[in-house]
Amino acid sequence: MSANKQILLKSRPDGIPQAEHFELASAPVPEPGDRQFLVRNEFLSVEPAMRGWVSAVANYSTPVGIGEVMRAFAAGTVVKSRHPGFAEGDKLMGMLGWQDYALSDGTNITRKVKETDLPLSLSLGVLGLNGLTAYFGLLDLGLPKPGDTVVVSTAAGSVGSAVGQIAKLMGCRTVGIAGGATKVALCKDAFGYDAAIDYKSGDLDAALKAACPRGVDVYYDNTSGAISDAVIQHINVGARIVICGTASVSSWDPWPSGPRIERHILVKRGRMAGLIVFDYAHRYEEAATRLAQWVRDGKLKYREDIAEGIEHAPGAIAELYRGENLGKRLIRLTP
Amino acid sequence: MSANKQILLKSRPDGIPQAEHFELASAPVPEPGDRQFLVRNEFLSVEPAMRGWVSAVANYSTPVGIGEVMRAFAAGTVVKSRHPGFAEGDKLMGMLGWQDYALSDGTNITRKVKETDLPLSLSLGVLGLNGLTAYFGLLDLGLPKPGDTVVVSTAAGSVGSAVGQIAKLMGCRTVGIAGGATKVALCKDAFGYDAAIDYKSGDLDAALKAACPRGVDVYYDNTSGAISDAVIQHINVGARIVICGTASVSSWDPWPSGPRIERHILVKRGRMAGLIVFDYAHRYEEAATRLAQWVRDGKLKYREDIAEGIEHAPGAIAELYRGENLGKRLIRLTP
Repeated sequence: MSANKQILLKSRPDGIPQAEHFELASAPVPEPGDRQFLVRNEFLSVEPAMRGWVSAVANYSTPVGIGEVMRAFAAGTVVKSRHPGFAEGDKLMGMLGWQDYALSDGTNITRKVKETDLPLSLSLGVLGLNGLTAYFGLLDLGLPKPGDTVVVSTAAGSVGSAVGQIAKLMGCRTVGIAGGATKVALCKDAFGYDAAIDYKSGDLDAALKAACPRGVDVYYDNTSGAISDAVIQHINVGARIVICGTASVSSWDPWPSGPRIERHILVKRGRMAGLIVFDYAHRYEEAATRLAQWVRDGKLKYREDIAEGIEHAPGAIAELYRGENLGKRLIRLTP
Repeated sequence: MSANKQILLKSRPDGIPQAEHFELASAPVPEPGDRQFLVRNEFLSVEPAMRGWVSAVANYSTPVGIGEVMRAFAAGTVVKSRHPGFAEGDKLMGMLGWQDYALSDGTNITRKVKETDLPLSLSLGVLGLNGLTAYFGLLDLGLPKPGDTVVVSTAAGSVGSAVGQIAKLMGCRTVGIAGGATKVALCKDAFGYDAAIDYKSGDLDAALKAACPRGVDVYYDNTSGAISDAVIQHINVGARIVICGTASVSSWDPWPSGPRIERHILVKRGRMAGLIVFDYAHRYEEAATRLAQWVRDGKLKYREDIAEGIEHAPGAIAELYRGENLGKRLIRLTP
């Protein structure tokens, strides 16, 4: 076995992590001890939440330490095992870090990948945390009913695109908001949105009015900021607002200002709820099974944007926030 | 029968309605037609929501017209009936207006008052919309569990005081926020809050920290603004925020600014929901029956602040917003 290439956190970013906050290092490939196993990573994930994982601001997980391997989801294969629950050849997805090889005792494994008829990379996207986030956020908090109008921000993204398609499967009218003509075209052509709005061009409020003639029943938000402020103006009585991400706000320390929504939430009897997918761990298999079947049936499309080689990882979070990827951003490791 | 004294809306207020926006008028006492009945009002209600009822800003009800009798809940007795469902002597509570006599076909009746062993005035307070608002907001949206910390703003008010006591009955730790020493004393001595905070004195954040050592699980808000901003900082994972009123914000046109809560709602997986009690009309009897039994058992206390004579009505909304009343503000009509 070659050395274990790893991406370490070099310094703590103030805002969005850039390539310069990481460094490539090399370590010996570890040997599994008793009740441990070794995973050869094949795909590394890149996602907006990583900003939070390296942030010193109070968050929902303790920050990655300086000099530590960057926390990341990854998918790979067990290559050595001294653990009774994991056998050589098992396909796994878990918090395995930005590195070639990861030692595990099983506690950082999100799930064994059972859909071996489908590409392993999907376990990090449409069948992974992105798909699960879309599934639980929309169905458990958004509570879509047939005929509802569901608006999704970052609609062409790996979470948003799944939200839009699942909403469509539930019989809703789906309206996607994305930035730029390419993503808007993806929304309509690949992900089947009934309408798609380019928030970078023209009057968002007028576009929402045209796209949502019966108002907004569910708003699934990944942005916060100006996009949300515009959508919230259009909610119907009893609307559900799912807060899944805040990609458009670059710093939350201190909290930025925005229009107060309390009166509107009151008058509309709106419900706003925050979602963190890890709270649904006990229901991952239910969702992954259902999502995988939709993928096999051609009802749930996905896009991947795969960079080759671990050296692409450090700059990949900032690329996400610049909106440069088209599809789930992954890093494929060369065997 | 004497004439029917009425309070009419004279001009549309910009903000909180003052005495000058109303005028006292006199009309003939009407005669019930077929399927109508005449109610002699005994108590008129005064409540914060009346600001919305006379506002031209989009709201959850059409505004009262200039020259019309001021929309208001009132309680009284049927004195003449040509309606098969309502008999002379029936005690009623409904949208009967600020006037001595109201004609009704039954559609504006909220409920027949069945708790005739208790004072009729309670049907406008602890057994009326205030108690019902507290009941449904806390139990249906706040979802209190034994051991939860429940924070209530306008804690000595007619809604807040019921929220605090019902939360206590559910086994929660209750923390009331009110303005001034008299109301804080009421919170502790009359309404049994475990802790009460005077938001007008000292450091609200520090007081919240001291009063909520295990954080805030339910926040029942009637204020919006600075009080909410402080409480929301202390919510626990999974907290529920009930938006019931926005008394501390004097104008919502345009929407004022405040700290953005999206990130905090996300990280804490908070749930914020707006409540309008009229949505629960099909469950009023369930709640009123339960509330009445708590009153009889001495487990649910209330305060009333009753002014004598309809001429006190016009200035009473502004008094509410100045926080001058101690207990449910009612106007008793002289028979």
